Amino acid sequence: MSQNLPPSDRSRVRRVADRGRYDHETVHSIVDAAYLCHVAFADEHGVHCIPTACWREGEYLYIHGSNGSRMLKALTGQGACVTITHLDGLVLARSAFHHSMNYRSVVVHGRFEVVPAEHKAESMNRFMDHIAEGRRHEARPGDANELAATTLLRIPLAESSAKIRTGGPKDDAADMSREVWAGVLPLTMVGGSPQPDGAERPVPDYVQQWAGGVAKAARVPIA
Amino acid sequence: MSQNLPPSDRSRVRRVADRGRYDHETVHSIVDAAYLCHVAFADEHGVHCIPTACWREGEYLYIHGSNGSRMLKALTGQGACVTITHLDGLVLARSAFHHSMNYRSVVVHGRFEVVPAEHKAESMNRFMDHIAEGRRHEARPGDANELAATTLLRIPLAESSAKIRTGGPKDDAADMSREVWAGVLPLTMVGGSPQPDGAERPVPDYVQQWAGGVAKAARVPIA
Repeated sequence: MSQNLPPSDRSRVRRVADRGRYDHETVHSIVDAAYLCHVAFADEHGVHCIPTACWREGEYLYIHGSNGSRMLKALTGQGACVTITHLDGLVLARSAFHHSMNYRSVVVHGRFEVVPAEHKAESMNRFMDHIAEGRRHEARPGDANELAATTLLRIPLAESSAKIRTGGPKDDAADMSREVWAGVLPLTMVGGSPQPDGAERPVPDYVQQWAGGVAKAARVPIA
Repeated sequence: MSQNLPPSDRSRVRRVADRGRYDHETVHSIVDAAYLCHVAFADEHGVHCIPTACWREGEYLYIHGSNGSRMLKALTGQGACVTITHLDGLVLARSAFHHSMNYRSVVVHGRFEVVPAEHKAESMNRFMDHIAEGRRHEARPGDANELAATTLLRIPLAESSAKIRTGGPKDDAADMSREVWAGVLPLTMVGGSPQPDGAERPVPDYVQQWAGGVAKAARVPIA
Protein backbone atom coordinates (compact mmCIF):
# COMPACT_ATOMS: atom_id res chain seq x y z
CA MET A 1 0.00 0.00 0.00
CA SER A 2 1.80 3.07 -1.12
CA GLN A 3 0.66 6.51 -0.07
CA ASN A 4 -2.51 6.91 -2.02
CA LEU A 5 -2.37 4.46 -4.87
CA PRO A 6 -4.52 1.34 -5.04
CA PRO A 7 -2.49 -1.84 -4.47
CA SER A 8 -4.27 -3.64 -7.32
CA ASP A 9 -6.77 -2.93 -10.03
CA ARG A 10 -9.60 -4.69 -8.21
CA SER A 11 -8.84 -2.65 -5.08
CA ARG A 12 -9.29 0.65 -6.86
CA VAL A 13 -12.34 2.60 -5.70
CA ARG A 14 -14.25 3.49 -8.86
CA ARG A 15 -17.65 4.77 -7.75
CA VAL A 16 -16.94 8.31 -6.37
CA ALA A 17 -13.22 7.62 -6.69
CA ASP A 18 -12.13 10.61 -4.61
CA ARG A 19 -13.49 8.85 -1.53
CA GLY A 20 -10.84 6.13 -1.94
CA ARG A 21 -7.88 5.87 0.43
CA TYR A 22 -5.10 3.35 0.31
CA ASP A 23 -2.65 4.37 3.03
CA HIS A 24 -1.91 2.03 5.97
CA GLU A 25 -2.94 4.51 8.63
CA THR A 26 -6.46 4.94 7.28
CA VAL A 27 -6.99 1.23 6.63
CA HIS A 28 -5.67 0.30 10.08
CA SER A 29 -7.82 2.82 11.92
CA ILE A 30 -11.00 1.57 10.25
CA VAL A 31 -10.12 -2.08 10.93
CA ASP A 32 -9.15 -1.31 14.54
CA ALA A 33 -12.48 0.43 15.17
CA ALA A 34 -14.38 -2.76 14.26
CA TYR A 35 -15.54 -5.68 16.33
CA LEU A 36 -16.78 -7.54 13.28
CA CYS A 37 -16.36 -7.86 9.55
CA HIS A 38 -18.32 -9.48 6.72
CA VAL A 39 -16.54 -12.27 4.85
CA ALA A 40 -17.57 -13.12 1.29
CA PHE A 41 -16.57 -16.42 -0.29
CA ALA A 42 -17.98 -18.91 -2.76
CA ASP A 43 -18.68 -22.62 -2.54
CA GLU A 44 -20.71 -25.13 -4.51
CA HIS A 45 -23.94 -23.46 -3.31
CA GLY A 46 -23.00 -19.96 -4.51
CA VAL A 47 -21.56 -16.90 -2.79
CA HIS A 48 -21.95 -16.30 0.93
CA CYS A 49 -21.52 -13.30 3.16
CA ILE A 50 -21.01 -14.11 6.82
CA PRO A 51 -20.42 -11.72 9.74
CA THR A 52 -17.67 -12.70 12.16
CA ALA A 53 -15.48 -11.15 14.84
CA CYS A 54 -12.14 -9.77 13.68
CA TRP A 55 -8.99 -8.09 14.88
CA ARG A 56 -5.76 -6.83 13.37
CA GLU A 57 -2.16 -7.79 13.96
CA GLY A 58 0.31 -5.81 11.89
CA GLU A 59 -0.61 -6.15 8.23
CA TYR A 60 -3.15 -8.95 8.72
CA LEU A 61 -6.80 -9.20 9.63
CA TYR A 62 -7.62 -12.22 11.80
CA ILE A 63 -10.79 -14.24 12.27
CA HIS A 64 -11.43 -17.39 14.26
CA GLY A 65 -14.00 -20.08 14.83
CA SER A 66 -14.65 -23.69 15.57
CA ASN A 67 -12.67 -26.24 13.57
CA GLY A 68 -16.04 -27.46 12.32
CA SER A 69 -17.02 -24.13 10.74
CA ARG A 70 -17.98 -24.53 7.11
CA MET A 71 -16.80 -21.02 6.39
CA LEU A 72 -13.34 -21.50 7.85
CA LYS A 73 -12.93 -24.75 5.92
CA ALA A 74 -14.12 -23.13 2.70
CA LEU A 75 -11.83 -20.13 3.13
CA THR A 76 -8.60 -22.08 3.13
CA GLY A 77 -8.48 -22.86 -0.55
CA GLN A 78 -9.80 -19.85 -2.42
CA GLY A 79 -9.89 -16.09 -2.59
CA ALA A 80 -12.15 -14.09 -0.32
CA CYS A 81 -13.25 -10.55 0.29
CA VAL A 82 -13.56 -9.05 3.75
CA THR A 83 -15.42 -5.82 4.37
CA ILE A 84 -15.74 -3.58 7.41
CA THR A 85 -18.20 -0.70 7.44
CA HIS A 86 -18.83 1.97 10.05
CA LEU A 87 -21.95 4.03 9.40
CA ASP A 88 -21.32 7.55 10.73
CA GLY A 89 -24.46 9.39 9.72
CA LEU A 90 -27.35 10.06 7.39
CA VAL A 91 -26.82 12.95 5.01
CA LEU A 92 -30.05 14.81 4.31
CA ALA A 93 -29.84 16.87 1.14
CA ARG A 94 -32.30 19.40 -0.26
CA SER A 95 -33.19 16.99 -3.06
CA ALA A 96 -34.03 13.31 -2.69
CA PHE A 97 -31.36 12.44 -5.24
CA HIS A 98 -28.44 13.87 -3.23
CA HIS A 99 -29.23 12.13 0.04
CA SER A 100 -26.25 10.11 1.16
CA MET A 101 -24.56 8.48 4.12
CA ASN A 102 -21.32 9.19 5.91
CA TYR A 103 -19.26 6.07 6.46
CA ARG A 104 -15.81 4.56 6.73
CA SER A 105 -15.28 1.23 5.02
CA VAL A 106 -12.42 -1.10 4.17
CA VAL A 107 -12.54 -3.81 1.53
CA VAL A 108 -9.82 -6.49 1.58
CA HIS A 109 -9.28 -8.94 -1.25
CA GLY A 110 -6.98 -11.89 -0.82
CA ARG A 111 -6.62 -15.38 0.56
CA PHE A 112 -6.86 -16.48 4.13
CA GLU A 113 -4.11 -18.65 5.57
CA VAL A 114 -4.23 -20.84 8.66
CA VAL A 115 -2.45 -19.41 11.70
CA PRO A 116 0.00 -22.10 12.89
CA ALA A 117 -0.82 -23.87 16.17
CA GLU A 118 2.17 -22.37 17.97
CA HIS A 119 0.89 -18.83 17.38
CA LYS A 120 -2.74 -19.40 18.29
CA ALA A 121 -2.49 -18.64 22.03
CA GLU A 122 -0.70 -15.35 21.39
CA SER A 123 -3.16 -14.31 18.69
CA MET A 124 -6.14 -15.10 20.89
CA ASN A 125 -4.56 -12.81 23.49
CA ARG A 126 -4.42 -10.05 20.89
CA PHE A 127 -8.08 -10.67 20.14
CA MET A 128 -8.94 -10.42 23.84
CA ASP A 129 -6.98 -7.16 24.08
CA HIS A 130 -9.03 -5.86 21.16
CA ILE A 131 -12.29 -6.72 22.95
CA ALA A 132 -11.21 -5.41 26.36
CA GLU A 133 -7.67 -4.33 27.15
CA GLY A 134 -6.32 -6.19 30.16
CA ARG A 135 -9.08 -8.79 30.32
CA ARG A 136 -6.81 -11.64 29.32
CA HIS A 137 -5.10 -11.33 32.70
CA GLU A 138 -8.46 -11.88 34.43
CA ALA A 139 -10.42 -14.49 32.46
CA ARG A 140 -9.20 -18.06 32.38
CA PRO A 141 -7.02 -18.46 29.27
CA GLY A 142 -7.85 -21.10 26.70
CA ASP A 143 -6.57 -24.54 27.64
CA ALA A 144 -4.94 -26.97 25.22
CA ASN A 145 -8.26 -28.55 24.22
CA GLU A 146 -9.98 -25.21 23.65
CA LEU A 147 -7.10 -23.94 21.53
CA ALA A 148 -7.01 -27.20 19.59
CA ALA A 149 -10.74 -26.87 18.84
CA THR A 150 -10.25 -23.35 17.46
CA THR A 151 -9.12 -22.42 13.97
CA LEU A 152 -7.53 -19.02 13.38
CA LEU A 153 -7.23 -17.60 9.89
CA ARG A 154 -5.60 -14.42 8.71
CA ILE A 155 -5.72 -12.46 5.47
CA PRO A 156 -3.09 -9.93 4.43
CA LEU A 157 -4.19 -6.30 4.26
CA ALA A 158 -1.87 -5.81 1.29
CA GLU A 159 -4.72 -5.68 -1.20
CA SER A 160 -7.12 -3.38 0.57
CA SER A 161 -8.82 -0.07 0.04
CA ALA A 162 -10.67 2.31 2.29
CA LYS A 163 -13.59 4.47 1.29
CA ILE A 164 -14.74 7.39 3.38
CA ARG A 165 -17.49 9.94 3.13
CA THR A 166 -17.66 12.82 5.59
CA GLY A 167 -19.34 16.20 5.71
CA GLY A 168 -22.65 17.65 4.65
CA PRO A 169 -24.85 17.25 1.59
CA LYS A 170 -23.67 18.26 -1.88
CA ASP A 171 -26.77 19.79 -3.39
CA ASP A 172 -27.32 21.26 -6.81
CA ALA A 173 -26.95 25.05 -6.83
CA ALA A 174 -30.56 25.41 -7.94
CA ASP A 175 -31.77 23.63 -4.78
CA MET A 176 -29.77 25.62 -2.23
CA SER A 177 -32.52 28.13 -1.52
CA ARG A 178 -35.21 25.50 -0.92
CA GLU A 179 -36.99 25.80 2.40
CA VAL A 180 -35.97 22.36 3.63
CA TRP A 181 -33.72 21.32 6.52
CA ALA A 182 -30.44 19.91 5.24
CA GLY A 183 -27.49 18.51 7.12
CA VAL A 184 -26.13 15.42 8.80
CA LEU A 185 -27.81 13.16 11.35
CA PRO A 186 -24.77 11.57 13.03
CA LEU A 187 -24.72 7.94 14.13
CA THR A 188 -22.42 6.50 16.76
CA MET A 189 -22.09 3.09 18.35
CA VAL A 190 -22.12 3.65 22.11
CA GLY A 191 -21.86 1.42 25.15
CA GLY A 192 -24.89 0.82 27.36
CA SER A 193 -25.04 -0.09 31.06
CA PRO A 194 -23.01 -3.25 31.71
CA GLN A 195 -25.21 -6.25 32.61
CA PRO A 196 -23.38 -8.38 35.19
CA ASP A 197 -23.93 -12.14 35.14
CA GLY A 198 -24.32 -14.01 38.40
CA ALA A 199 -22.45 -13.22 41.61
CA GLU A 200 -21.11 -9.73 42.31
CA ARG A 201 -17.44 -9.33 41.39
CA PRO A 202 -14.98 -6.46 41.40
CA VAL A 203 -15.75 -4.30 38.34
CA PRO A 204 -12.72 -3.71 36.10
CA ASP A 205 -12.02 -0.26 34.63
CA TYR A 206 -13.06 -1.21 31.10
CA VAL A 207 -16.48 -2.28 32.39
CA GLN A 208 -16.87 0.80 34.58
CA GLN A 209 -16.06 3.10 31.66
CA TRP A 210 -18.27 1.31 29.16
CA ALA A 211 -21.66 3.00 29.51
CA GLY A 212 -22.03 6.16 27.42
CA GLY A 213 -18.62 5.77 25.83
CA VAL A 214 -18.05 5.46 22.10
CA ALA A 215 -17.49 1.76 21.55
CA LYS A 216 -14.11 2.10 19.90
CA ALA A 217 -12.08 5.25 20.29
CA ALA A 218 -10.23 4.95 17.01
CA ARG A 219 -11.37 7.54 14.50
CA VAL A 220 -9.95 7.89 11.06
CA PRO A 221 -7.70 10.88 10.45
CA ILE A 222 -9.37 13.01 7.78
CA ALA A 223 -6.86 14.79 5.56
CA MET B 1 -40.57 -19.09 5.02
CA SER B 2 -42.61 -21.37 7.23
CA GLN B 3 -42.70 -20.88 10.95
CA ASN B 4 -39.27 -22.02 11.98
CA LEU B 5 -37.98 -24.14 9.15
CA PRO B 6 -35.20 -23.04 6.83
CA PRO B 7 -36.48 -22.22 3.31
CA SER B 8 -33.55 -24.04 1.69
CA ASP B 9 -30.61 -26.16 2.67
CA ARG B 10 -28.12 -23.34 2.12
CA SER B 11 -30.23 -21.07 4.33
CA ARG B 12 -30.08 -23.43 7.27
CA VAL B 13 -28.06 -22.09 10.21
CA ARG B 14 -25.59 -24.83 11.10
CA ARG B 15 -23.07 -23.27 13.48
CA VAL B 16 -24.97 -22.99 16.83
CA ALA B 17 -28.16 -24.01 15.03
CA ASP B 18 -30.50 -23.03 17.87
CA ARG B 19 -29.74 -19.39 17.12
CA GLY B 20 -31.41 -19.75 13.71
CA ARG B 21 -34.79 -18.18 12.97
CA TYR B 22 -36.74 -18.34 9.75
CA ASP B 23 -40.05 -16.61 10.44
CA HIS B 24 -41.03 -13.46 8.52
CA GLU B 25 -41.47 -11.30 11.60
CA THR B 26 -37.92 -11.85 12.82
CA VAL B 27 -36.36 -11.43 9.37
CA HIS B 28 -38.36 -8.27 8.69
CA SER B 29 -37.54 -6.64 12.01
CA ILE B 30 -33.80 -7.15 11.50
CA VAL B 31 -33.93 -5.83 7.92
CA ASP B 32 -36.07 -2.86 8.95
CA ALA B 33 -33.61 -1.89 11.67
CA ALA B 34 -30.82 -1.53 9.10
CA TYR B 35 -29.66 1.40 7.03
CA LEU B 36 -27.17 -0.72 5.14
CA CYS B 37 -26.38 -4.26 4.09
CA HIS B 38 -23.34 -6.05 2.69
CA VAL B 39 -23.76 -7.57 -0.77
CA ALA B 40 -21.55 -10.47 -1.85
CA PHE B 41 -21.21 -11.42 -5.50
CA ALA B 42 -18.59 -12.79 -7.86
CA ASP B 43 -17.12 -11.53 -11.10
CA GLU B 44 -14.06 -12.31 -13.18
CA HIS B 45 -11.83 -10.80 -10.46
CA GLY B 46 -13.18 -12.98 -7.66
CA VAL B 47 -15.74 -12.45 -4.91
CA HIS B 48 -16.63 -9.00 -3.62
CA CYS B 49 -18.41 -7.73 -0.54
CA ILE B 50 -19.78 -4.21 -0.84
CA PRO B 51 -21.75 -2.17 1.70
CA THR B 52 -24.76 -0.32 0.37
CA ALA B 53 -27.96 1.31 1.62
CA CYS B 54 -31.05 -0.92 1.74
CA TRP B 55 -34.71 -0.95 2.58
CA ARG B 56 -37.55 -3.45 2.56
CA GLU B 57 -40.82 -3.52 0.69
CA GLY B 58 -42.97 -6.54 1.47
CA GLU B 59 -40.95 -9.67 0.83
CA TYR B 60 -38.09 -7.94 -0.98
CA LEU B 61 -34.91 -6.15 0.02
CA TYR B 62 -34.08 -3.18 -2.21
CA ILE B 63 -30.80 -1.50 -3.10
CA HIS B 64 -30.04 1.28 -5.55
CA GLY B 65 -27.20 3.09 -7.23
CA SER B 66 -25.95 4.81 -10.31
CA ASN B 67 -26.58 3.07 -13.62
CA GLY B 68 -22.79 3.00 -13.98
CA SER B 69 -22.24 0.95 -10.82
CA ARG B 70 -20.17 -2.15 -11.50
CA MET B 71 -21.88 -3.94 -8.67
CA LEU B 72 -25.39 -3.29 -9.92
CA LYS B 73 -24.44 -4.43 -13.40
CA ALA B 74 -22.77 -7.57 -12.06
CA LEU B 75 -25.74 -8.43 -9.85
CA THR B 76 -28.25 -8.73 -12.64
CA GLY B 77 -27.08 -12.03 -14.00
CA GLN B 78 -26.03 -14.19 -11.11
CA GLY B 79 -26.79 -15.24 -7.58
CA ALA B 80 -25.86 -13.04 -4.66
CA CYS B 81 -25.87 -13.06 -0.89
CA VAL B 82 -26.96 -10.10 1.19
CA THR B 83 -26.20 -9.84 4.89
CA ILE B 84 -27.34 -7.45 7.58
CA THR B 85 -25.76 -7.52 11.02
CA HIS B 86 -26.59 -5.56 14.16
CA LEU B 87 -24.01 -5.92 16.90
CA ASP B 88 -25.81 -5.67 20.24
CA GLY B 89 -23.06 -6.31 22.74
CA LEU B 90 -19.86 -7.97 23.83
CA VAL B 91 -20.33 -11.03 26.01
CA LEU B 92 -17.57 -11.36 28.58
CA ALA B 93 -17.31 -14.88 29.96
CA ARG B 94 -15.23 -16.22 32.84
CA SER B 95 -13.01 -18.06 30.38
CA ALA B 96 -11.47 -16.63 27.22
CA PHE B 97 -12.97 -19.48 25.19
CA HIS B 98 -16.59 -18.62 26.02
CA HIS B 99 -16.43 -14.94 25.14
CA SER B 100 -19.02 -14.11 22.53
CA MET B 101 -21.08 -11.33 20.99
CA ASN B 102 -24.78 -10.59 21.00
CA TYR B 103 -26.10 -9.82 17.56
CA ARG B 104 -29.02 -10.03 15.14
CA SER B 105 -28.22 -10.96 11.57
CA VAL B 106 -30.04 -11.88 8.39
CA VAL B 107 -28.50 -13.70 5.44
CA VAL B 108 -30.38 -13.65 2.13
CA HIS B 109 -29.47 -15.85 -0.81
CA GLY B 110 -31.03 -15.27 -4.19
CA ARG B 111 -30.94 -13.24 -7.36
CA PHE B 112 -31.49 -9.55 -7.73
CA GLU B 113 -33.93 -8.32 -10.33
CA VAL B 114 -34.23 -4.86 -11.85
CA VAL B 115 -37.12 -2.76 -10.54
CA PRO B 116 -39.10 -1.59 -13.60
CA ALA B 117 -38.88 2.12 -14.46
CA GLU B 118 -42.53 2.73 -13.64
CA HIS B 119 -42.02 1.63 -10.03
CA LYS B 120 -38.79 3.49 -9.33
CA ALA B 121 -40.30 6.75 -8.09
CA GLU B 122 -42.56 4.96 -5.64
CA SER B 123 -39.75 2.74 -4.36
CA MET B 124 -37.45 5.73 -3.87
CA ASN B 125 -40.23 7.23 -1.76
CA ARG B 126 -40.24 4.11 0.37
CA PHE B 127 -36.49 4.42 0.76
CA MET B 128 -36.85 8.04 1.86
CA ASP B 129 -39.51 7.00 4.39
CA HIS B 130 -37.07 4.44 5.73
CA ILE B 131 -34.38 7.11 6.19
CA ALA B 132 -36.70 9.75 7.67
CA GLU B 133 -40.47 9.38 7.78
CA GLY B 134 -42.15 12.34 6.09
CA ARG B 135 -39.03 13.78 4.52
CA ARG B 136 -40.13 12.96 0.98
CA HIS B 137 -42.79 15.66 1.33
CA GLU B 138 -40.08 18.24 2.07
CA ALA B 139 -37.06 17.48 -0.10
CA ARG B 140 -37.30 17.97 -3.85
CA PRO B 141 -38.30 14.63 -5.40
CA GLY B 142 -36.15 13.05 -8.06
CA ASP B 143 -36.80 14.45 -11.53
CA ALA B 144 -36.99 12.36 -14.69
CA ASN B 145 -33.24 12.58 -15.35
CA GLU B 146 -32.29 11.65 -11.80
CA LEU B 147 -34.62 8.67 -11.79
CA ALA B 148 -33.37 7.61 -15.22
CA ALA B 149 -29.77 7.72 -13.91
CA THR B 150 -30.65 5.46 -10.98
CA THR B 151 -30.90 1.68 -11.01
CA LEU B 152 -33.00 -0.08 -8.39
CA LEU B 153 -32.58 -3.77 -7.71
CA ARG B 154 -34.50 -6.04 -5.40
CA ILE B 155 -33.90 -9.52 -4.06
CA PRO B 156 -36.64 -11.74 -2.62
CA LEU B 157 -36.45 -12.52 1.09
CA ALA B 158 -37.82 -15.97 0.36
CA GLU B 159 -34.48 -17.67 0.90
CA SER B 160 -33.34 -15.99 4.08
CA SER B 161 -32.39 -16.88 7.61
CA ALA B 162 -31.93 -14.89 10.78
CA LYS B 163 -29.44 -15.66 13.51
CA ILE B 164 -29.68 -14.11 16.94
CA ARG B 165 -27.67 -14.31 20.11
CA THR B 166 -28.94 -12.65 23.28
CA GLY B 167 -28.21 -12.93 26.97
CA GLY B 168 -25.18 -13.48 29.15
CA PRO B 169 -22.16 -15.75 28.92
CA LYS B 170 -22.46 -19.53 28.97
CA ASP B 171 -19.53 -20.59 31.07
CA ASP B 172 -18.35 -24.03 32.05
CA ALA B 173 -19.57 -25.04 35.52
CA ALA B 174 -15.97 -25.31 36.72
CA ASP B 175 -15.39 -21.61 35.93
CA MET B 176 -18.45 -20.17 37.64
CA SER B 177 -16.70 -19.46 40.95
CA ARG B 178 -13.79 -17.61 39.36
CA GLU B 179 -13.21 -14.13 40.71
CA VAL B 180 -13.69 -12.39 37.36
CA TRP B 181 -16.39 -9.97 36.18
CA ALA B 182 -18.70 -11.62 33.68
CA GLY B 183 -21.65 -10.21 31.79
CA VAL B 184 -22.66 -8.22 28.76
CA LEU B 185 -21.32 -4.88 27.54
CA PRO B 186 -24.26 -3.65 25.42
CA LEU B 187 -23.77 -1.75 22.17
CA THR B 188 -26.34 0.53 20.57
CA MET B 189 -26.32 2.77 17.53
CA VAL B 190 -27.52 6.18 18.69
CA GLY B 191 -28.12 9.51 17.03
CA GLY B 192 -25.81 12.46 17.73
CA SER B 193 -26.56 16.20 17.54
CA PRO B 194 -27.87 17.09 14.06
CA GLN B 195 -25.39 19.17 12.05
CA PRO B 196 -27.33 21.67 9.91
CA ASP B 197 -25.91 22.65 6.54
CA GLY B 198 -26.05 26.27 5.44
CA ALA B 199 -28.91 28.66 6.16
CA GLU B 200 -31.20 28.12 9.14
CA ARG B 201 -34.40 26.30 8.28
CA PRO B 202 -37.37 25.03 10.25
CA VAL B 203 -36.29 21.84 12.01
CA PRO B 204 -38.57 18.86 11.31
CA ASP B 205 -39.60 16.49 14.10
CA TYR B 206 -37.40 13.64 12.91
CA VAL B 207 -34.35 15.93 13.15
CA GLN B 208 -35.37 17.34 16.53
CA GLN B 209 -35.81 13.85 17.97
CA TRP B 210 -32.61 12.45 16.53
CA ALA B 211 -29.97 13.18 19.20
CA GLY B 212 -29.78 10.55 21.93
CA GLY B 213 -32.36 8.32 20.28
CA VAL B 214 -31.74 4.77 19.21
CA ALA B 215 -31.21 5.00 15.47
CA LYS B 216 -33.93 2.54 14.51
CA ALA B 217 -36.65 1.63 16.96
CA ALA B 218 -37.33 -1.81 15.58
CA ARG B 219 -36.17 -4.52 17.92
CA VAL B 220 -36.55 -8.17 17.27
CA PRO B 221 -39.15 -10.03 19.31
CA ILE B 222 -37.31 -12.66 21.31
CA ALA B 223 -39.38 -15.78 21.86
